[in-house]
Amino acid sequence: MKRVKLIVAYDGTNYCGWQIQPNGVTVEEMLNHHLSQLLQEPIKVIGASRTDAGVHALGNVAVFDTEARMPADKISYAMNTRLPADIRILDSMEVAVNFHPRKSRTIKTYEYCIYNRRFPDPTKRLYSYFTYYSLDIEKMKTAASYLVGTHDFKSFSTWKAEVTDTVRTIYEITITKENDLIRIHIRGNGFLYHMVRIIAGTLMQVGQGIIRPEEIEKILEKKDRNAAGPTARPEGLTLVSIEYPQEEWTEPLIFQEK
Amino acid sequence: MKRVKLIVAYDGTNYCGWQIQPNGVTVEEMLNHHLSQLLQEPIKVIGASRTDAGVHALGNVAVFDTEARMPADKISYAMNTRLPADIRILDSMEVAVNFHPRKSRTIKTYEYCIYNRRFPDPTKRLYSYFTYYSLDIEKMKTAASYLVGTHDFKSFSTWKAEVTDTVRTIYEITITKENDLIRIHIRGNGFLYHMVRIIAGTLMQVGQGIIRPEEIEKILEKKDRNAAGPTARPEGLTLVSIEYPQEEWTEPLIFQEK
Repeated sequence: MKRVKLIVAYDGTNYCGWQIQPNGVTVEEMLNHHLSQLLQEPIKVIGASRTDAGVHALGNVAVFDTEARMPADKISYAMNTRLPADIRILDSMEVAVNFHPRKSRTIKTYEYCIYNRRFPDPTKRLYSYFTYYSLDIEKMKTAASYLVGTHDFKSFSTWKAEVTDTVRTIYEITITKENDLIRIHIRGNGFLYHMVRIIAGTLMQVGQGIIRPEEIEKILEKKDRNAAGPTARPEGLTLVSIEYPQEEWTEPLIFQEK
Repeated sequence: MKRVKLIVAYDGTNYCGWQIQPNGVTVEEMLNHHLSQLLQEPIKVIGASRTDAGVHALGNVAVFDTEARMPADKISYAMNTRLPADIRILDSMEVAVNFHPRKSRTIKTYEYCIYNRRFPDPTKRLYSYFTYYSLDIEKMKTAASYLVGTHDFKSFSTWKAEVTDTVRTIYEITITKENDLIRIHIRGNGFLYHMVRIIAGTLMQVGQGIIRPEEIEKILEKKDRNAAGPTARPEGLTLVSIEYPQEEWTEPLIFQEK
């Protein structure tokens, strides 16, 4: 038996997110189906990040166990001839049998992309959120600075019964504007349900002048979802990468769910 | 009666190109349909560039005549509430009644986008051509320099009975690489059928080392389509803009088809 790690990229437009569910096709389901066919045994992947419907990924991580003799590094090539064009395996490698994609300390990087012009660009519509409201980037940067660090992000998350610890650390938020495209780049040790989208929605309200940048501190203090701005639409969000510190997966598992 | 000019952007993925044809839905057809509904009279647009199936546009130009009283600058807003999300009118304005979008001197700008990495990025697949062959950008730049200027581009076009003059002027070709994305930016006074795609296909063969940069001169001299490289796939191509020198459309029409 070996454990294989996949780096998975996908266009989330046509999927009901990562996790298997009854209402539509998911990325997890596609991977299980094609891996099982390829390796001729029932395969169930475990994903690092269960992205929502419509959210994209350039580097999600999935792990599975197999008895198959195919070398781990060949699996990416074989899978890419089988998968639909909107899912690609960027890399496949054997990992330690105790490596768990969610039960490890990780650094996740997300990008929220906003297209800010009078009218939308049809060629950007699937991978960015369009708004014609003029956004003040400097105010958004100031607001973002209050979010960096270790905070209780309860105000910036949608409640989930199984999550009791809402403290997370954001290492960095950078906001850049190139032509009409604003990118919010955010790096942290884990994100709560909808957290990046609520941060993006709140920063856009700051950019519009609805929320003052300094108010972010109070929104954090309130620990109340209603204090923050709206959840920004999924098409603007891309999971860029998940970094696993090298030592994590040669050491015993850390069983704290993040 | 007034003549109205539209700046039209579209994602060409789901269209059989610009021009009305029996086998599928085209951008021209969508514009005629929704303009006719909006203005309550039969409208037929004339497009500046009849892009092929799968080719995108950020700034194609269409013109039509109407008796409707709606101010020309309001038409963009009204049309964008009716059109599907993959077509947008970026601007609408009244122009001189002798303005013809094809029978004027113009500067057209196209961009051919190549995604050059080991595996494709699913979120780029609709708007770039993917190749895993490593491309030598410096060689491609040298090759492109032979194409700039006024030349007979017969070798770089697919034959069309109605086109007898195959001399065109390319003002500029710039090739840039940012991460894994190579962009060929090309500006000229008019392009023959498939010309940008054949240039892109040929430059990619130069980048791969199949054609030497200096051979471009001989390919031009041969005036034979078979001398050049393949026609690159349509999804990589975007019509960026069409510039009409101000004096053109206040002067009598120039009846030389380009």
